Amino acid sequence: MRQPALRPAAAGRRLEMKSEQIVLNQSRNVTLTTYLLEAGGEFGNIPKRPAVLILPGGGYQFCSDREADPVACPYLAAGFDAFILRYSVRKDAVWPNPLDDYEQAMQLIRSKAEEWNIYQDKIAVIGFSAGGHLAACAATMSVNRPNAAILGYPVTIGDDVRSCNVTAPDTISAVDKNTCPCFVFATRTDNLVPIRNSIHFVDALEQNDISFECHIYSHGPHGFSTCDASVQSYDTVIPQRVRSWVPDSIAWLKDIFGEFGNGCLTQPVCAKRSNGNMDDYLSVDCTFGYLMSKPEAAAVLTPILDKLKKAAASQNDDQNSQSMDPGAMDPAAMAVLTQRMKLRDLLSFGRAPAEAIEQIDQLLRKIANT
Amino acid sequence: MRQPALRPAAAGRRLEMKSEQIVLNQSRNVTLTTYLLEAGGEFGNIPKRPAVLILPGGGYQFCSDREADPVACPYLAAGFDAFILRYSVRKDAVWPNPLDDYEQAMQLIRSKAEEWNIYQDKIAVIGFSAGGHLAACAATMSVNRPNAAILGYPVTIGDDVRSCNVTAPDTISAVDKNTCPCFVFATRTDNLVPIRNSIHFVDALEQNDISFECHIYSHGPHGFSTCDASVQSYDTVIPQRVRSWVPDSIAWLKDIFGEFGNGCLTQPVCAKRSNGNMDDYLSVDCTFGYLMSKPEAAAVLTPILDKLKKAAASQNDDQNSQSMDPGAMDPAAMAVLTQRMKLRDLLSFGRAPAEAIEQIDQLLRKIANT
Amino acid sequence: MRQPALRPAAAGRRLEMKSEQIVLNQSRNVTLTTYLLEAGGEFGNIPKRPAVLILPGGGYQFCSDREADPVACPYLAAGFDAFILRYSVRKDAVWPNPLDDYEQAMQLIRSKAEEWNIYQDKIAVIGFSAGGHLAACAATMSVNRPNAAILGYPVTIGDDVRSCNVTAPDTISAVDKNTCPCFVFATRTDNLVPIRNSIHFVDALEQNDISFECHIYSHGPHGFSTCDASVQSYDTVIPQRVRSWVPDSIAWLKDIFGEFGNGCLTQPVCAKRSNGNMDDYLSVDCTFGYLMSKPEAAAVLTPILDKLKKAAASQNDDQNSQSMDPGAMDPAAMAVLTQRMKLRDLLSFGRAPAEAIEQIDQLLRKIANT
Amino acid sequence: MRQPALRPAAAGRRLEMKSEQIVLNQSRNVTLTTYLLEAGGEFGNIPKRPAVLILPGGGYQFCSDREADPVACPYLAAGFDAFILRYSVRKDAVWPNPLDDYEQAMQLIRSKAEEWNIYQDKIAVIGFSAGGHLAACAATMSVNRPNAAILGYPVTIGDDVRSCNVTAPDTISAVDKNTCPCFVFATRTDNLVPIRNSIHFVDALEQNDISFECHIYSHGPHGFSTCDASVQSYDTVIPQRVRSWVPDSIAWLKDIFGEFGNGCLTQPVCAKRSNGNMDDYLSVDCTFGYLMSKPEAAAVLTPILDKLKKAAASQNDDQNSQSMDPGAMDPAAMAVLTQRMKLRDLLSFGRAPAEAIEQIDQLLRKIANT
Repeated sequence: MRQPALRPAAAGRRLEMKSEQIVLNQSRNVTLTTYLLEAGGEFGNIPKRPAVLILPGGGYQFCSDREADPVACPYLAAGFDAFILRYSVRKDAVWPNPLDDYEQAMQLIRSKAEEWNIYQDKIAVIGFSAGGHLAACAATMSVNRPNAAILGYPVTIGDDVRSCNVTAPDTISAVDKNTCPCFVFATRTDNLVPIRNSIHFVDALEQNDISFECHIYSHGPHGFSTCDASVQSYDTVIPQRVRSWVPDSIAWLKDIFGEFGNGCLTQPVCAKRSNGNMDDYLSVDCTFGYLMSKPEAAAVLTPILDKLKKAAASQNDDQNSQSMDPGAMDPAAMAVLTQRMKLRDLLSFGRAPAEAIEQIDQLLRKIANT
Repeated sequence: MRQPALRPAAAGRRLEMKSEQIVLNQSRNVTLTTYLLEAGGEFGNIPKRPAVLILPGGGYQFCSDREADPVACPYLAAGFDAFILRYSVRKDAVWPNPLDDYEQAMQLIRSKAEEWNIYQDKIAVIGFSAGGHLAACAATMSVNRPNAAILGYPVTIGDDVRSCNVTAPDTISAVDKNTCPCFVFATRTDNLVPIRNSIHFVDALEQNDISFECHIYSHGPHGFSTCDASVQSYDTVIPQRVRSWVPDSIAWLKDIFGEFGNGCLTQPVCAKRSNGNMDDYLSVDCTFGYLMSKPEAAAVLTPILDKLKKAAASQNDDQNSQSMDPGAMDPAAMAVLTQRMKLRDLLSFGRAPAEAIEQIDQLLRKIANT
Repeated sequence: MRQPALRPAAAGRRLEMKSEQIVLNQSRNVTLTTYLLEAGGEFGNIPKRPAVLILPGGGYQFCSDREADPVACPYLAAGFDAFILRYSVRKDAVWPNPLDDYEQAMQLIRSKAEEWNIYQDKIAVIGFSAGGHLAACAATMSVNRPNAAILGYPVTIGDDVRSCNVTAPDTISAVDKNTCPCFVFATRTDNLVPIRNSIHFVDALEQNDISFECHIYSHGPHGFSTCDASVQSYDTVIPQRVRSWVPDSIAWLKDIFGEFGNGCLTQPVCAKRSNGNMDDYLSVDCTFGYLMSKPEAAAVLTPILDKLKKAAASQNDDQNSQSMDPGAMDPAAMAVLTQRMKLRDLLSFGRAPAEAIEQIDQLLRKIANT
Repeated sequence: MRQPALRPAAAGRRLEMKSEQIVLNQSRNVTLTTYLLEAGGEFGNIPKRPAVLILPGGGYQFCSDREADPVACPYLAAGFDAFILRYSVRKDAVWPNPLDDYEQAMQLIRSKAEEWNIYQDKIAVIGFSAGGHLAACAATMSVNRPNAAILGYPVTIGDDVRSCNVTAPDTISAVDKNTCPCFVFATRTDNLVPIRNSIHFVDALEQNDISFECHIYSHGPHGFSTCDASVQSYDTVIPQRVRSWVPDSIAWLKDIFGEFGNGCLTQPVCAKRSNGNMDDYLSVDCTFGYLMSKPEAAAVLTPILDKLKKAAASQNDDQNSQSMDPGAMDPAAMAVLTQRMKLRDLLSFGRAPAEAIEQIDQLLRKIANT
């Protein structure tokens, strides 16, 4: 048993949230508001914190206050530091001004990471509507890439982007293998930003094997922010379950960044990619089909697999297997399935010992993935 | 104040769930299991119930028990009757046998609706994996269409369908304007059914303006069923939030079908389509852009809109408007947005009185949508 | 349809949370930290806000930072303003210093209510452990009573109070008819503050017919604050459901104060008392038994009830009643039950028309409750 | 990685819930309805299941169908087998008939445990209102004690019990050290069963150091069952959060019984007692104060503690301790706190090594607790 850390701060000092408004660009009226929770003291397990950078929406005509502080609060409640960027709007929104604002903000946060007790590589961007467009640009085309992006009813498709900012770029075509993991949410009946903006963006992520999560709720208006009663019109019709995007996005960030642990964040449970097919070298995390399409890998694997098959066969005779009855599967179907399984999973499934898997991995990691 | 109905059933009679297994096709071993809750008596507000028809998965090789009873239970808990169809598998799964099984089951349920106290037009189909393929077929190509479909990690794309059943059809191309509302959920890292199967299906629904809800969770294995601990391997790594699909799908069904009300279900809050552009006649539920592209409608609307604009202009001088400051919007952007708003919303936004909207609607409903 | 208010604030002005630390007592190191959300502008429906005043725990030896900002954040996220009082501790905690600190803080907040856009009569106090003792004192013996109190693992029983502050008073005996509604939560296995402290306090509330809600979770350590991972030791064993106290307490506050509505809070749905037996005048909200024990009321009611009974009897012959079958109830049991029902409920149950109930109410309200 | 067990049942056999109605007593019309989920097959991890025995309410005048099947369903969904006992009512409810019915039912279930694949020592009773009284009797005075009890708006106090069944006993005075862990829930404004019935029962549990969980919601009518829309009057006013009692009680049962694990239930995380003070022999799970009041134990502990204190003192000099700053605590308060801590926790807190704690435990376990 360990007691919660109960050591009070040094006499007279209160560990309190610090807030300030930093002017990033006077002439374009760009500001960064900081909400920094304390670390250390009674928060002895938290020497540093992950953070979120919030980009409110407003059609590049204004930065909505409804998508600023009300969004920061639940992430603060979950132990994240929060920043709000009010970027260039109206005539100042000519591209790439808003993206430059983002770059400047992210650069500033990372440069102050030590002083502010923030993990430099655990900073997510959260954008809504036009701010969701800016967040998608940050995720796909910025120099200072965020480590995760949360996109609320975002504008992503060139044509739709231009309807609110004629100079701003399409983001679908910009999704690349360096895009960060994304969490996308929206309502299908959004009558300002067509829902295809969310679908096509997710489709592009899938094609690039970028980790994502996506929630499209059946109905509800545009611009619902956290969906809390305090940011809604009292007569808004929107399902209660839409409010789940907030805790769900926090849980997702912890899957991506790690949870508060013993003096540091724990290991993330959700990888950026679903397999190793796009890594620089081959590994047991590549799919079986992909590996067998590479002659060098096939040469390594064929003799090993033969050996394992024989071992498995003799084992199956001995025991009442918990695994899928091979007789139950159509062999053709089975063949297709194994093509797309990771070799690691396939080997585990075949009860290969951990050391064997490790050995195969080391052999494969010598082969460049070209 | 009204008291909950407390009238006990007639002496000695217990209102209990009735269960039986009906053989639909002896030679193909097709069965329909029924779980029928009682209606009437102490359930005085519930003369009839909505229902779900469950199609377990199993790669058309078997019908998984893990996706049968454990799925029925939470819907029963929410007041739905439940049916489980164990359809043709293995060699019997040659198309269209499984779809025929579905047709037979749905026909039987609807024919017994009176006797079983079921709403004939409030029957959803729920399918998982290969059963999700069959549910998608039911939703898009059956004669006896379901009223809603819940698809769990479904196989939908022809190529992927054929990897588990070579004779079974693609469903993406089958999505049409008669497809029922759909709720789709899956995990992105599913290593048996690629996540593109969910994305492409949702994309097809969007293109046909069919109501849907979609939840793709960042990670987790294939075949998680309800995600309850009692249907998982004890060491499965899957986010807690995946379990939300069950209550979310129930809430969604009630948005589509209505909630238990005063002796009947309440009015649904979620329409099948997001606007009237695909209806047989025009209406104020069509988008403004669509209406103005129809000369007959434009002729009706132009004089009316001129009049309303003038009224609105004089009104705006008088009062501190709560609505979006027109000066804040780029006129070009504003024009694009209004194109895609429903005329009804546009008129309300412009503070047109309800009777005026009603009058315009009646004029438009005389114009065929060709 | 109404659009969410989208009017941006006057050019250049950002609606942001304001935070400051106000020194209430220099020599005792007492401070009040304010977190004030903006009202008006895009928050057009919210001219004022309800508020919470947080009293951290720490055994009157210190004010725990773990029960300060992390508690403020979720209430801010729900649209409440938040204050943190760091009251007198250690040698300064000699009674009534801490209570004086509270009085000063509440007085200041109420005096600034206009300027800070706060509802003067919608201010809850939230206290933890020793701070829960102080909150219980505020609820039961302060001059400036709060409008609701949330007590987390509070110390309430004199003997236990004295074990952390020998000069501080018992609160159980102080519960009176002016005590505000209370929400009490704790874990049964709390090894610092025995769980009887919560039970006895709730018992005293019940005896005084004060509205309360109470959640005692089966196990978990003392001092869990919001139970969020960011305020726990990484290895704390505590049920996930304990975290519900935060949203539950917010929902409860809205039941007591009202929800954000059309420019004001809506009518509360939860009354302070369960019936009118302790009000200054009689009414239909008194229980039937209580009214019949008052000769003046009995004289009014007897003829009216006779008439209603006859009407009900003839009505029952006509229709298939949805109400409890009278034949199903033991008459003696029925008599006991009716004694403790409010007359209003009893009349509704008997299908008395609303106007008749209103008339009876007016007659009763002329009779002083002595 | 392990795959979920996918082995289909033997050809043609479907693993389905089995339901039957067993007549326990023809003349008193007592029946036991069984809902048995399958074990084995695809549920390979579940050779046996825990179970719930449901006792509907109805004032001992009838057994409410609203508190029968609708209650069974969510527990079935969570993997529990479910039984519904319709016990003796009206003239047959003369004591001890209903309790005899319970004894007969529990005896039958335990005798069939092998055949029905049920854990004999993981059977909870769930009762509502008068059924809650019967469940409380089962928990406190039956021969065949349940392993846990869930009491919904129960009648427990003699006087209130007699108002619905004149022959039935008080339960408060019957709470003893053999009472099983209890989960109690109710609404404060219940106008049929006064809320003191829940409070006094919980108070009695506390005095006997019996594990419990308790949720009293601020308002809502009597008889809300699962609080699902399908068992309510459409116009019932009751907080949404009341519905949490269902998943909360399931989570609590798993804390008491264990979670589905690797072929068996996992170790429970919630003990029946908060410490060992009522066990037959002393141990490190007794509180420090209790042990030191026993001369035999004090003789064992004094030299050991002296040694540990010295070790801890030297260790504190070396490192920046995460634990409570001793200087921050009033020594008198500290002394009181340590009295009521378990010796095990106190030793861990003082960084005693696990083996040392184990040794002390073995010494103490030789001393009878008299």
